[in-house]
Amino acid sequence: MSAHIAIDAMSGDFGPHLLIPACLAALAEDSSLTLTLVGDASLLSDLLTQHSGWDRARLHVEHASEVISMAEKPSSALRGKPDSSMRIALELLRDQRVQGCVSAGNTGALMALARFTLKTLPGVDRPAMMTAIPTQQDECHLLDLGANVDCSAEHLYQFAVMGSLAAASMGVANPRVALLNIGSEAIKGNQQVKFAASLLEQAEHLNYIGFIEGDAVFRGEADVVVCDGFVGNVLLKSSEGLAQLITERIRRVFQESLTGRLVGGIALPLLKRLQDELSPATHNGASFLGLPGVVIKSHGSADQQAFLSAIRRAKQAVAENLPQKLHGHLGDLLL
Amino acid sequence: MSAHIAIDAMSGDFGPHLLIPACLAALAEDSSLTLTLVGDASLLSDLLTQHSGWDRARLHVEHASEVISMAEKPSSALRGKPDSSMRIALELLRDQRVQGCVSAGNTGALMALARFTLKTLPGVDRPAMMTAIPTQQDECHLLDLGANVDCSAEHLYQFAVMGSLAAASMGVANPRVALLNIGSEAIKGNQQVKFAASLLEQAEHLNYIGFIEGDAVFRGEADVVVCDGFVGNVLLKSSEGLAQLITERIRRVFQESLTGRLVGGIALPLLKRLQDELSPATHNGASFLGLPGVVIKSHGSADQQAFLSAIRRAKQAVAENLPQKLHGHLGDLLL
Repeated sequence: MSAHIAIDAMSGDFGPHLLIPACLAALAEDSSLTLTLVGDASLLSDLLTQHSGWDRARLHVEHASEVISMAEKPSSALRGKPDSSMRIALELLRDQRVQGCVSAGNTGALMALARFTLKTLPGVDRPAMMTAIPTQQDECHLLDLGANVDCSAEHLYQFAVMGSLAAASMGVANPRVALLNIGSEAIKGNQQVKFAASLLEQAEHLNYIGFIEGDAVFRGEADVVVCDGFVGNVLLKSSEGLAQLITERIRRVFQESLTGRLVGGIALPLLKRLQDELSPATHNGASFLGLPGVVIKSHGSADQQAFLSAIRRAKQAVAENLPQKLHGHLGDLLL
Repeated sequence: MSAHIAIDAMSGDFGPHLLIPACLAALAEDSSLTLTLVGDASLLSDLLTQHSGWDRARLHVEHASEVISMAEKPSSALRGKPDSSMRIALELLRDQRVQGCVSAGNTGALMALARFTLKTLPGVDRPAMMTAIPTQQDECHLLDLGANVDCSAEHLYQFAVMGSLAAASMGVANPRVALLNIGSEAIKGNQQVKFAASLLEQAEHLNYIGFIEGDAVFRGEADVVVCDGFVGNVLLKSSEGLAQLITERIRRVFQESLTGRLVGGIALPLLKRLQDELSPATHNGASFLGLPGVVIKSHGSADQQAFLSAIRRAKQAVAENLPQKLHGHLGDLLL
């Protein structure tokens, strides 16, 4: 299935120098894909001349004169920069000139601009960022990941509904939905979580299974895990940090002892496979749920491989027609 | 150095059946240790008769007729159960009949009873739970871990001061103190975190280094990481879950392929060492800071080895005389 995706080409910690090779790799692996790079047209064209072998019919450049920095306030991104690459990319999506949009930029600004440009789906107060993380069973869809720092119980409820529909659209039958908490007993947690639990217990169309703790998330005890964006972001990033720590230590274990060195030559490739499976690069690309179009947030620090994963995720979301599915079912489920 | 520790012997998911063998192991490995088991005296005495070889002079039983359950509200633990094992253990500490107290019980109840029984140190509004987690550098002291679900900026500031003093008393020179956040830029985070940052920037006696993200925690970019108890608990527990997931996957990688099976016999013992190093059992035992005595919280689900670690941590805190050190220095640092 063909897809046309807009890329916020000025975004991320490394900007177009890193994103362009990732885009060319995405085009090379899928002949039905078309990309529009949004950003400083002369810079982008210059950079593109350094590469060869790409198909001009499937790679366009759309000029945008401004760039939103990582440290910029959402309010200033919204009001002060009408011609930012992020905003123009979202406007291409709004005007249906593309079917999806990928940015590695400032999360808060992307959230504010996406809400302003695209509006949220009916009944949704705030879009939420969701991604899949590996578990002992399979994977788990976690939301929100940082778009919403403070969440009311109603927001958490809406995230649960959107997450459940999104997981179902990805093939999970009757997704088990849980609220992340610091204990499984009903008395645990803050007010928002306790009240969200009481709302979810009454939601007949949801397979709400109750509270879940951090360790049970990775044991795979739920298919959808709901939390506020502060907590979700900490969970996601600390997991990445720990996975790095563990692979680093494994390498050291094999280097330190003689037996380790002898065995390491054979064992390390096996562990490399594991590392790839758990790597943030493989899982990069969080979906904004609750918007009428496909918006994917890549890690700011994404490398080429990781940004390629984010583009793939955008293609997948376009193919699944996720926004349309959410739009069709949210009405039955929201309060 | 000798130590006398009270054990809330009715606590934890498995109660005295699991805790008693851990206590006997602690006594066996340290002839200067004395323990007082607090709980149902006839049950405890019965269980003790099933074991032999322990020194009656170093193991006492103190009767308490009530038990606080994991699902009990702190308020009911405080008002409804004057003779709980947890409370009696804390009263032994208050009355200086022991030098420390270990419980694997309900965190909220332990927090409420400790504050009520022992009172907090001058200038401290709320005690905080701290533990050390492994990093790529060495280790990092993380607080709060779940005793305080909602925290004001002032609470986070106090946690930073206590965490810094505690890390210093454990031998960390000029500890680097950071606030856990979802971005390193000043605009990121919720109101409490931003305001806490402004307080910490003005604290001259603290080596405050700014915001830290979840991945940087495990890279070892700070010695003390401060957050509210909800976030800290999620970080700690999800890390445990992920570490389990990774070791499980490693085992599977070695079992699946023929090369893997051949190599695994040699590689797995090396990985076992790593697993032990990262295991929650090795790191079990969180210190309550801000109280005039040593109170250690063990995981409710601690196994025998993990509960033994918690007892060792209590001995170490007694040896370091941590509460006294905090008492002596807090005055200079708190607002």
